[in-house]
Amino acid sequence: MNYEVAVVGAGVVGLATAYHVMRAPGGSRVAVVDALGGPGMGDTSRSVGGFRTAFTSSVNRVLARSSVEFYEEVQRGGYDLGMRRIGYMFLATASSVDALGKLLGDGADFLDEGELEEMGIRTHVSNLDDAAVLGLEDLVGGFLYRDAGIFDPHLIVEYYVEKLEEMGCDFKYGAEARIVMEPTRPLGIPGEPFPWQEVRARGFRVGDAEVNADTVVLATGAWTGSMLDDAGFPLPLRPLRRMAYSVSATSGALGELLSRDIPALVIPGGVFLRPDPGGAFHVEFGLRRPYGPEDPEPEAWELGALPVLSSYLPAFEGVAPSDSWVGRYDMNIVTGTPIVERLADGLLVAAGTSGSGVMKADAIGRVAAALALGKERVELHGGISMDPMALSAPSGEERLVI
Amino acid sequence: MNYEVAVVGAGVVGLATAYHVMRAPGGSRVAVVDALGGPGMGDTSRSVGGFRTAFTSSVNRVLARSSVEFYEEVQRGGYDLGMRRIGYMFLATASSVDALGKLLGDGADFLDEGELEEMGIRTHVSNLDDAAVLGLEDLVGGFLYRDAGIFDPHLIVEYYVEKLEEMGCDFKYGAEARIVMEPTRPLGIPGEPFPWQEVRARGFRVGDAEVNADTVVLATGAWTGSMLDDAGFPLPLRPLRRMAYSVSATSGALGELLSRDIPALVIPGGVFLRPDPGGAFHVEFGLRRPYGPEDPEPEAWELGALPVLSSYLPAFEGVAPSDSWVGRYDMNIVTGTPIVERLADGLLVAAGTSGSGVMKADAIGRVAAALALGKERVELHGGISMDPMALSAPSGEERLVI
Repeated sequence: MNYEVAVVGAGVVGLATAYHVMRAPGGSRVAVVDALGGPGMGDTSRSVGGFRTAFTSSVNRVLARSSVEFYEEVQRGGYDLGMRRIGYMFLATASSVDALGKLLGDGADFLDEGELEEMGIRTHVSNLDDAAVLGLEDLVGGFLYRDAGIFDPHLIVEYYVEKLEEMGCDFKYGAEARIVMEPTRPLGIPGEPFPWQEVRARGFRVGDAEVNADTVVLATGAWTGSMLDDAGFPLPLRPLRRMAYSVSATSGALGELLSRDIPALVIPGGVFLRPDPGGAFHVEFGLRRPYGPEDPEPEAWELGALPVLSSYLPAFEGVAPSDSWVGRYDMNIVTGTPIVERLADGLLVAAGTSGSGVMKADAIGRVAAALALGKERVELHGGISMDPMALSAPSGEERLVI
Repeated sequence: MNYEVAVVGAGVVGLATAYHVMRAPGGSRVAVVDALGGPGMGDTSRSVGGFRTAFTSSVNRVLARSSVEFYEEVQRGGYDLGMRRIGYMFLATASSVDALGKLLGDGADFLDEGELEEMGIRTHVSNLDDAAVLGLEDLVGGFLYRDAGIFDPHLIVEYYVEKLEEMGCDFKYGAEARIVMEPTRPLGIPGEPFPWQEVRARGFRVGDAEVNADTVVLATGAWTGSMLDDAGFPLPLRPLRRMAYSVSATSGALGELLSRDIPALVIPGGVFLRPDPGGAFHVEFGLRRPYGPEDPEPEAWELGALPVLSSYLPAFEGVAPSDSWVGRYDMNIVTGTPIVERLADGLLVAAGTSGSGVMKADAIGRVAAALALGKERVELHGGISMDPMALSAPSGEERLVI
C-alpha cells in the first residue's frame, strides 16, 4: 500500500492535517495512525476545553482566530461542538494590572472590585491566614476578554473523524508507528542509513509491517520532542504537565456559582477555572517546574490549587475534585508557537502547540497540509494567506558548520 | 562549609568561571566539583584543539576574539598553551564559494586551484569512481582565514587550574553533584519543594553530604540539557557527537604533507583536518544526524570520513587512524550561541558552547562570573563591555501563562 500522506498521531492536529490534505483538489490517499486505541486520546483528551484569541504572539493570535471561526462555522452549520463564547476573565492584582491591560488592550472590558464581588469573587485576600505563604495579592479588578470561551475537544475530534471517514481516509489505532528512513544516495551496504548520510522518509513501520508514504507527518503532540531527538532532528519541544481536576457543581454553593454564567477565570497563582454548563467546573493548576516526569502530584490540590482557588472563590472552600488527571502541553520552550516544518525529504512535523492546540488546530492542519502537498501559499479559514514555511522552528544565525 | 560560588563542572568553561570569580576584587570562597576524576576530562578533552574568530553569529565572534586574545597574552607571558596561528582554510566548491566569500569577507585570502594543488590538495574529484555516491564536487579554491589556528585545550585547563590552586580554590573530583533546591516560601511540610512552589538553589549534594553555596553555576557541558530537563528548567541544549580521529604523520606522504605547514582545513563533506605539529593529523567528521546516542560509529572512518578525505588529499589514501573517539558538542540547537543565565535564585547556567567552547571559554567565564557576583556590566579581555544578561537563552514573545 502506498499513501500520498501518512499522518502519525490522531489528535486534533493530526486529524485537521489529514482533513485538509484530503479536501484539497485532486484528492489524496491518506492514512492516520495512532499508538492509542482511538482518535483524540492523547494530549487532546486532556484539554479542559477553553479557547481564546488573545496571545502575546501574533502567530498564535492568527492561528487561533482562524481556527475558532472555523469551528463556529461548523457549529452554525448544525454540527454541535459545544462552543459558547462565555469569555475569559483575567483577574488582576496591583502588580499585574498594567501588564494585563497592555496585553489585552481594547479587546477586554475592565470590571472593578465591586463587580467581581457581585460574581462571587473575593477581592480582598491579603488578610487571610495563608496569604503570605501562598503569595496571594488583593484583586484590583478583572479584564473580561469576550473573544474567548469554551468548546468540547471531543466533539471537534468527532467532526474531523466523521468527515475523514466520508472521504475514505484509512485509520489504524493501537499501532505504534516508527518512521522508516532511507539514504538519498545509497551505498548498498548493510546498516544504511548511516548517521552521516543524507536521508529521506519512505513511510512508517508498525511492528514488522512497513507502509510506504510519499510524506509522513508527525503530529505526535507531547511525544514529538523525544521522538525527534531519537531520530536525530532535535527541536526545542518538551512535554509540559499541568494538574487538571473536575469538580461537580450540581448543587450548593458551586451550583449557585455555575448558575451565574461566570466566564472562564484566569486566577493569580496559576489556576484556570473553566465552567462546564453540564454541571461542573474544570480546574487547571500550573506548575512552576512543569517539565519533570509526567506523574500526577497528589498534594497539588490540597496544598496548591485549592488554597488559591478558595481564597478568591469562597464557594470552593473544602471542596474535593470528582476527577483528576495530568494535562499535557507540547511546549515550544523557545517561542511558545507551533512548529510546522519539513525536516527531511518526505518528513514533516506539526507540533509545538504549547498548550493551545485545540484552539489552533484547524489552522495548523491547513499549514501542514499545504507543506505536504508542496503548495507555496496556504489560505486559513477567514481568508488570511500565509507562507506555509512561516511556522518553521526558531533558529539563529549560526550556520557555519565547523 | 559555605561557599560563595560553587561551580559544577571542571571543564574549561567551569574553570574560567571560577578563575574570574576569584580574581574579582574582594575575593570569594569558591569550589569546583566534577563527576570525573580530574579537570578537563569531559567535553574539553574531546576537542581537537582548533580556534577561529570567524562565526556567522556576532555573539560568537566577540566571545572567541576576546578569549583567543587572552590565551595569546597568557602564552606571551611565558605560559605555553600550544597556540599557533596557522590559519583555517575553507575549501570552496562552485556551489559554496559565494556563501563562503560572503561569510568570511575581508578576513580571508582566496587561493586558487593551482595554489591548492601545490599544497597537495586534489581539486578535480568529480571524475573519481565514488564521486556521485559521496556527493563530491570539484574545488574552485580556498579561503585562507588567518585569524585562526590551533591550541592545546589540555594546557589551557592546566593554566586555569594552576591559577585557581594559587588562589585557594577547593577542587573535588569524582563527585557527582546534585543541586539542592529549597522553597522561597516554605510550607513546613515533608516533600518540599513541590513543583508548583518557587524555589532557590541552596547548594549541592554529593552522596549524602550537602555543601552550601550562595550561587551554584552549572558548567556541565553536554550533560547540561538533560540535567536541567530533570530539574525542570528546560533549555534548547542537546549533546551533539562528531567522530574524531588521530592519524600518525611522522613519515611517508602524511609526514611530507605535515611538513608543508598547511593550515587547518575545512573540507566539503563534513571533514575538518587539524595538523598537530607533534607528528599527527586530527580529523573530525560531522554527522548529519548527530543527536543520537553517544556511541562511536565504527564504519564512519572507512565509509564516511576516509573516502572524502583521500579524494581531496591523496596523501590519506588507505590510511588507518591510530586513535578514535567521539567528540562532543554542547549544542544550543536554536542559535548556536552560549547560554549564560540565572535560572532561579542562586542557580546559574553557563553552557551551550555549541562546538566552540574552548575558544570562547575565557569570555564565557567572565560573563558567568559577573552574573554570579551580581555585576551589571562585564568587561571581556580586550576591553569590550557587555551586559552579562546578553547571553540569556533565546525566547519568543509568548509569555501569557494560560
